[in-house]
Amino acid sequence: MPVTDRRSLLQTAAVLPLAAAATREALVSPAIAAPAAPARDVTRTLARYLVTASYGDLPANVRKEGVRTLMNWVGVAIGGSRHETVDIAVAALAPFSGPGQASLLGRRERFDIMNAAFINGVSSHIFDYDDTHLKTIIHPAGPVASAILAVAEMQRVSGRDFLNALVLGVETECRIGNAVYPNHYDVGWHITGTAGVFGSAAAVGKLLRLDEQQMVFALGLAASQPVGLRESFGSMNKSFNPGRAASNGIFAAVLASKNFTSSDGMIEAKRGWANTISTKQDYGEITLDLGTRYETALNTYKPFACGIVLHPAIDAAIQLRNENRLTADEIERIDLKVHPLVLELTGKKTPQLGLEGKFSVYHAVAVAIIEGAAGEKQFSDRAVRDPAVVSLRSRVVPVITPGIDPAQVDMTIVLKDGRTLNRYIKHAVGSVEVPMTDRQLEAKFADLADGILPAPLARKVMDACWSVESLEDAADIAKMSHLA
Amino acid sequence: MPVTDRRSLLQTAAVLPLAAAATREALVSPAIAAPAAPARDVTRTLARYLVTASYGDLPANVRKEGVRTLMNWVGVAIGGSRHETVDIAVAALAPFSGPGQASLLGRRERFDIMNAAFINGVSSHIFDYDDTHLKTIIHPAGPVASAILAVAEMQRVSGRDFLNALVLGVETECRIGNAVYPNHYDVGWHITGTAGVFGSAAAVGKLLRLDEQQMVFALGLAASQPVGLRESFGSMNKSFNPGRAASNGIFAAVLASKNFTSSDGMIEAKRGWANTISTKQDYGEITLDLGTRYETALNTYKPFACGIVLHPAIDAAIQLRNENRLTADEIERIDLKVHPLVLELTGKKTPQLGLEGKFSVYHAVAVAIIEGAAGEKQFSDRAVRDPAVVSLRSRVVPVITPGIDPAQVDMTIVLKDGRTLNRYIKHAVGSVEVPMTDRQLEAKFADLADGILPAPLARKVMDACWSVESLEDAADIAKMSHLA
Repeated sequence: MPVTDRRSLLQTAAVLPLAAAATREALVSPAIAAPAAPARDVTRTLARYLVTASYGDLPANVRKEGVRTLMNWVGVAIGGSRHETVDIAVAALAPFSGPGQASLLGRRERFDIMNAAFINGVSSHIFDYDDTHLKTIIHPAGPVASAILAVAEMQRVSGRDFLNALVLGVETECRIGNAVYPNHYDVGWHITGTAGVFGSAAAVGKLLRLDEQQMVFALGLAASQPVGLRESFGSMNKSFNPGRAASNGIFAAVLASKNFTSSDGMIEAKRGWANTISTKQDYGEITLDLGTRYETALNTYKPFACGIVLHPAIDAAIQLRNENRLTADEIERIDLKVHPLVLELTGKKTPQLGLEGKFSVYHAVAVAIIEGAAGEKQFSDRAVRDPAVVSLRSRVVPVITPGIDPAQVDMTIVLKDGRTLNRYIKHAVGSVEVPMTDRQLEAKFADLADGILPAPLARKVMDACWSVESLEDAADIAKMSHLA
Repeated sequence: MPVTDRRSLLQTAAVLPLAAAATREALVSPAIAAPAAPARDVTRTLARYLVTASYGDLPANVRKEGVRTLMNWVGVAIGGSRHETVDIAVAALAPFSGPGQASLLGRRERFDIMNAAFINGVSSHIFDYDDTHLKTIIHPAGPVASAILAVAEMQRVSGRDFLNALVLGVETECRIGNAVYPNHYDVGWHITGTAGVFGSAAAVGKLLRLDEQQMVFALGLAASQPVGLRESFGSMNKSFNPGRAASNGIFAAVLASKNFTSSDGMIEAKRGWANTISTKQDYGEITLDLGTRYETALNTYKPFACGIVLHPAIDAAIQLRNENRLTADEIERIDLKVHPLVLELTGKKTPQLGLEGKFSVYHAVAVAIIEGAAGEKQFSDRAVRDPAVVSLRSRVVPVITPGIDPAQVDMTIVLKDGRTLNRYIKHAVGSVEVPMTDRQLEAKFADLADGILPAPLARKVMDACWSVESLEDAADIAKMSHLA
């Protein structure tokens, strides 16, 4: 893996906590301010909720966000499927895979459900372009959707049951993440993998129709298999983590389904998960308001294929471009008031490789003006070497400005004809406050699937995702996304 | 799983740390007193050692202890193979296993190497009767031997290379365990699973002939997959941990063999394994005296199928019985001077079930006098209900005595003819100071294999273990131990 690639992944990750910290307070729900819930029956309370909660209980906004979560995840899993990380994992594991029970999205192979879930989980995180629960920086879909889509190919699962399991898995991992964040993350755990395995076990356990005690065991076996350290950020090991969380969760749920036992209080016991793995434990985050407060409703999706510190600038550039039908040759200069972090992390003036472009606010703004987008294609070698982009990026002038936070930007474009265009971004597109629209999610999906699935097929997969609640067989989504 | 079984497993585990703590100081090697080694190149230094170390480098005593480790492990893996924990795991995983590459010891099934390693690792820990590295309470063989014996069935491995890989795996996990013990264990991690995954990855990586960088990746992917919490002690989840450590280590090494990347300093980096998972990091334990100091040489084996707090009393009883050809009806009373822990943990006077017998110093002493042994059979329902045992156990009189530590006992048998027989045990058989003899290991093996392998076959497997260094194909051991 080239150095730049490593740095790219690293940077994307490094940016997230800071921005998340800025947003965290705003996202705190009233429940969090309540007195701490006792460390009693936490695992069992969660298990009881999981085995009884049904699709009919889900509020409309949660169902909707669950569908969007699915849609975004299928897109990024297909998009990552040709990356060398996935090629390597497929080659390494093929000799050991069980029967071809489940599809690798965007590829021709089929693996047993655990190995397929691993690969699809890896694939969906390769570009660091997947969904984000900003309160914890968990990428919720990877561990959960990878697992249940594979299981849905093994046994018939209705679209409604599938969506319910997806939401329950996301609730489980994000609530458990809330209970230990930020201490757990700060010390070095990759929370998507450590909390994600619970999400996978819960969602798969739901599909396997575990009873309450079996679900307790599944959560206990999940607690025994946390995955991932932040030190691995910048290597293939980062994508490994959501993939392994997915397969570990299946492993836990499958064993539990046969009554392989665990302790009853693996999350909350004195030497259980939360005490062992974190210096903070807020069990109310797990047990309070189950079925009322939904973390799924807070899920967000990245509109741009780079660290979120660049998103406000890209958002401003695309808005001004589109509203004014701007072309590069009209532009004299682009002034940007930014937080110091923007230059610290993305101050590269003359990127030579596509991946270096992810560390260049100059490139990001220029390519956004010229192409009106900032997907994976806009961070290719081709894009950073495009003479028009190279020319324009030299006219991008970021200035560190007090009072601008990392989630904000103030852009002024000075045109050659003397006019100036200004755009202040308080919340960039893709934030909780300004979510990506369904249409933007479709455009992202289409862009990721381009060159992997034929356009009509990509359209068909998107339609299946949007209408998942009416699918008789959720496996259709996997089968369509697979190159048989 | 019946309550008693859960308690049995719990107790065995609970006793170990105390006894280990008592012995720990005595075992500290001079190297540990040296100034702390820097947190630099720890992972790489270890990887470099692993890829260059060869069978010819091993001192004779280390080779010998490696062979004994193998012998003991094969016995306990065969012995545990009919336990319901294994039945459940086999039933749960069979639908997902890859090709039948590797044998389940003592059974008829064959699974892919990762699932086979998992099952054999579970099986070998079921009775809590496996080997123990007392400095860390790691059970070293489970994660390592389970993994490499499976790999040896996939590719030809000479007995010498096999033994070398076994030793290197044990060195890796025990050294990494030393670096973080006791803090890491105290907070709640099941160190056999968390350190064990490194042992498996290292040993498998050696057999796969990884180069130095690939070995760094394998250790990094291992660091990303720690297994096990102490809260699970008393459930099947405890045996799960060494099994999953074995399969996770294979998973790591197999991916690394195809150049799936990780970070270069996953053990020692700021947000790497040791800092994330422990408040103590003594890197010299990992990097100093490689190839000179061998933790393998300190491995110990349990002579009795119960918590080690009972071992001194059982040892005294068997010694006095054998030396004096004692029968139960000659005995008036058995006085025992013991540490308070003995009664706290094993004070059950009238056990009704075999597993309850493991918590009864009364039963343990009585059955040892009558049968001259304390293997799994002596903790069966049959044994605790034997009228002769029931009668004798009522004449066992333990007395808490200051100055007796948990590893000691002072036994006085008062005979009906007025004579008294005394035995003070300072170090029980099975300790580092009084290791089990090869003959005792054979008797333990034969007892465990009884009813599973025909006696001549058990003999053949033992011979193969003793002569592993001259085997052309180490897989012979697995094939013989499998009921084809």
